[in-house]
Amino acid sequence: MYENDFFLTWDKTEDELKAIWLVADILRYLRENNISTKIFTSGLAISIFRDNSTRTRFSFASACNLLGLVVNDLDEKKSQIAHGETVRETANMVSFMADVIGIRDDMYIGKGHTYQKEVVNAVTQGYKDGILEQKPTLVNLQCDIDHPTQSMADALHIIHKLVGGVENISQLKGKKIAMTWAYSPSYGKPLSVPQGVIGLLTRFGMDVVLAHPEGYEVMDDVLKLAKENSEKSGGKFTVTHDMKEAFKDADIVYPKSWAPYKAMEIRTDLYGKGDFKGIDELEKKLLKQNAEHKDWTANEEMMKLTKDGKGLYLHCLPADITDVSCKEGEVAASVFDRYRDDLYKQASYKPYVIAAMIYLAKIKDPIKGFEKMIKDNIERKTDL
Amino acid sequence: MYENDFFLTWDKTEDELKAIWLVADILRYLRENNISTKIFTSGLAISIFRDNSTRTRFSFASACNLLGLVVNDLDEKKSQIAHGETVRETANMVSFMADVIGIRDDMYIGKGHTYQKEVVNAVTQGYKDGILEQKPTLVNLQCDIDHPTQSMADALHIIHKLVGGVENISQLKGKKIAMTWAYSPSYGKPLSVPQGVIGLLTRFGMDVVLAHPEGYEVMDDVLKLAKENSEKSGGKFTVTHDMKEAFKDADIVYPKSWAPYKAMEIRTDLYGKGDFKGIDELEKKLLKQNAEHKDWTANEEMMKLTKDGKGLYLHCLPADITDVSCKEGEVAASVFDRYRDDLYKQASYKPYVIAAMIYLAKIKDPIKGFEKMIKDNIERKTDL
Amino acid sequence: MYENDFFLTWDKTEDELKAIWLVADILRYLRENNISTKIFTSGLAISIFRDNSTRTRFSFASACNLLGLVVNDLDEKKSQIAHGETVRETANMVSFMADVIGIRDDMYIGKGHTYQKEVVNAVTQGYKDGILEQKPTLVNLQCDIDHPTQSMADALHIIHKLVGGVENISQLKGKKIAMTWAYSPSYGKPLSVPQGVIGLLTRFGMDVVLAHPEGYEVMDDVLKLAKENSEKSGGKFTVTHDMKEAFKDADIVYPKSWAPYKAMEIRTDLYGKGDFKGIDELEKKLLKQNAEHKDWTANEEMMKLTKDGKGLYLHCLPADITDVSCKEGEVAASVFDRYRDDLYKQASYKPYVIAAMIYLAKIKDPIKGFEKMIKDNIERKTDL
Repeated sequence: MYENDFFLTWDKTEDELKAIWLVADILRYLRENNISTKIFTSGLAISIFRDNSTRTRFSFASACNLLGLVVNDLDEKKSQIAHGETVRETANMVSFMADVIGIRDDMYIGKGHTYQKEVVNAVTQGYKDGILEQKPTLVNLQCDIDHPTQSMADALHIIHKLVGGVENISQLKGKKIAMTWAYSPSYGKPLSVPQGVIGLLTRFGMDVVLAHPEGYEVMDDVLKLAKENSEKSGGKFTVTHDMKEAFKDADIVYPKSWAPYKAMEIRTDLYGKGDFKGIDELEKKLLKQNAEHKDWTANEEMMKLTKDGKGLYLHCLPADITDVSCKEGEVAASVFDRYRDDLYKQASYKPYVIAAMIYLAKIKDPIKGFEKMIKDNIERKTDL
Repeated sequence: MYENDFFLTWDKTEDELKAIWLVADILRYLRENNISTKIFTSGLAISIFRDNSTRTRFSFASACNLLGLVVNDLDEKKSQIAHGETVRETANMVSFMADVIGIRDDMYIGKGHTYQKEVVNAVTQGYKDGILEQKPTLVNLQCDIDHPTQSMADALHIIHKLVGGVENISQLKGKKIAMTWAYSPSYGKPLSVPQGVIGLLTRFGMDVVLAHPEGYEVMDDVLKLAKENSEKSGGKFTVTHDMKEAFKDADIVYPKSWAPYKAMEIRTDLYGKGDFKGIDELEKKLLKQNAEHKDWTANEEMMKLTKDGKGLYLHCLPADITDVSCKEGEVAASVFDRYRDDLYKQASYKPYVIAAMIYLAKIKDPIKGFEKMIKDNIERKTDL
Repeated sequence: MYENDFFLTWDKTEDELKAIWLVADILRYLRENNISTKIFTSGLAISIFRDNSTRTRFSFASACNLLGLVVNDLDEKKSQIAHGETVRETANMVSFMADVIGIRDDMYIGKGHTYQKEVVNAVTQGYKDGILEQKPTLVNLQCDIDHPTQSMADALHIIHKLVGGVENISQLKGKKIAMTWAYSPSYGKPLSVPQGVIGLLTRFGMDVVLAHPEGYEVMDDVLKLAKENSEKSGGKFTVTHDMKEAFKDADIVYPKSWAPYKAMEIRTDLYGKGDFKGIDELEKKLLKQNAEHKDWTANEEMMKLTKDGKGLYLHCLPADITDVSCKEGEVAASVFDRYRDDLYKQASYKPYVIAAMIYLAKIKDPIKGFEKMIKDNIERKTDL
């Protein structure tokens, strides 16, 4: 992974993914033991958020700070990034001293991943041409296809909760996870979370069930990939339109709203044409469609169906909680409350997963890097 | 104060307050002598400003930088912090690597302090539950009740000007300070400054006079507290509606506009109901009421009444200066000009007071911490 | 330059300018060789951008990061900087721990440079009065008169491309540079770039030609200065209204749109009076005037006129490229593409030039400073 980028989990081998989890755990261990993990004395990380963000923004900032980088946000409202030519230019102009570029661009189908590729091509060329002294590493902070920092953090949480550590990852084999759609009063939530989860967890022999009402399909390519993954890994991948079937005996459930892929494609087209009336109509139609599936919710009754009634509940947060943040939502308040600590713990892996992605892209010999940290034993905080 | 928070000065003992001033002076001394005072090699400070801010924002940034922390601002326009449930969630989500949280929330009576408590409860729970590796320390950067970084900076300025240092603090006994209302063409300035000043300075045996026109009362609880403080400390606390009486023989005067507590309570209620017409009417009424008291101003005539005509003039800045920033304001231009250096010096203590609050919350043995700094003797700036 | 500021290149001696280029090259060399060039363990850099900015913002952030400073942006929308009195106050309030202040203020004739002077006077006074512990150094990130970080980066690019290094700077003598106006569909681009270029390059014996259509004059003072410079340095300075004449046998061409100085003065007056209708009318008039000169463009035909058809094409970016970013613009796409690497390289000098300005203002003995860096040999990035 040295000097490479992170676009999609399925670009990486299983060994590479395991390395990321291992490095994330080591970085966490060192920080918890007050040992500095800085590998940069100076250097910039560029962040580009094409959508509002709190959690990912702070996770990225935390990861960069942990390694010694300072984040500079490229606020596009103040810049000239727009079409073809200038992506290349701006990417170079901000990267003279950039070691990392983190991009979140999940708004339009067919755009986010493409944009990230464009940026990486631009800075790779800039590096080859001697304009940049270093090739900044891309970290995909969410695109239209995958959300690798989320799914990798989710997976690390699962690994610790279910099998006790990365060394026991083979024990995930056969464990059932239900990645299911759930009702939310808002519409248009990104597909990258369910896609990321089925694209990743099918690689470890798990019994992965994708459940959603008819009409809420995810991208065909990712479905195909999940199927292939499960075959290779000796696991299972099924799609169902029955939430109960999905929850039945599940070790893990991940109920979450998303928008139909096809609808998001139409929306992207309408947006491209500037047809805002069309977008409004589409939104109304989708909200009406959503409202037909209010029974897709993680209430106590549903949770009882899971393995011994104690399946692990996951969510990428924030969740739409019935009677708390909305009248009817993805999850019942009592369920959410019971899993709150787990959910926060799940989220807490994200900064470390991001830091691990950067670390492995920047340190040629990752083990030597850690040996040096332990030998130097520099306190993160003066401990007196 | 180790691993504790800073909400209100009256939560702390006199010894703790003295420790803060002492540490602030030591940090300043070390910086002036080019000795690095960093106690963090990495770590985040989160800032939440629910109101525009320049001075406090830069003071907080300076303090954090001095100790080695990087500030990340939680811009609520880009986040989901709103009601009960999500305060807890967001507080945890941004705090995975946060050592400090600074909050300014002074807009609505009954809200700011409550919000700060909520955040602290959330991260304390998160720490206990193993979600956060450290409990971030809260620094109250201004709430509806108190403005401790301001009043502590004001007090340190007074200590240096009047008695020459923290070691002589007992000499403050009997010194007269007039915390008085003053006319400003704007309305609705926060009560936290006068409340913070009378809540703090009554603890050191001073003769504290609170002066304002009738109808400009501050919170009852703080009045009661100031009275109790002065009794315990052998000082005096009086309230008057006569600015001249307050200025008479005062060692220090602090003339500053604020809004009546009762009116601010009504405003908060109107805001809660979304009654913007009511708010407009209230504003008009308050501006009219203000205009009846244009004679409450720190002009040369008034300053002559102070101790030997040379009382120390204080302001938290920016001041409304007659004929400079407005037609009629809190202070005459000639008075302001004469005290300009003092006023800037007064403000210059704030970053050090904030840094001291953080230092004492993070270093178990503060003296050993300083001994290490002096022994290590790392240059803040390469001096060649 | 120690403890001094950088307003205009013509405030500095040729030796001082050469020192900046040399230091910029050394800093780049050290960074390329993974040697840390931090001279601050803590400290703030304040940035004030009175205009949107990507390139300069990131160049400044990179330069400060390279030296160990953390940038804090003073967003004036959130502050009170306005007229006389408060510039002084705010400048001091944000500078308690500020080592550098970078200001971009190029919008109105007669304002930017004046504002920068005001800020420097304020903090110089603050330092003398013991309010600030250090005098922050001003770096002019673009004003109404000069754009020194741009022209110095441009010059360093020229030096490397044409004569191979600062040690050969005398070989610039006689080289021809055409600083010419070019057509752009937008209007009102700043004059500071052409002014900066002719004010700087006339000092090194070059044959500097300023070309523009009649009516696009730059400031008289700068014209006068360029004339005097060229006489002193044994170079040439001519003004022409013929783009071809300017391009003829030029070693370097710098075709770029700008607004007539006189029109910008009128615009500033209209703005001062709040006459927005007048501004609209002026804009229409200027756009019409621009449109008469669409033939002022750097197309292949024009480039053939340059020295051996291979003159170096410069631009401060972003350029208005015909058929790419606009229908008709400053430069043909094929020309721009051929020089893209050069243009990006040109831009890449800016962070180092800014860092060099700061370094020389902060380190008394610059050579010793570098000797220490090389001796300490601290890795910028852990290299394992």
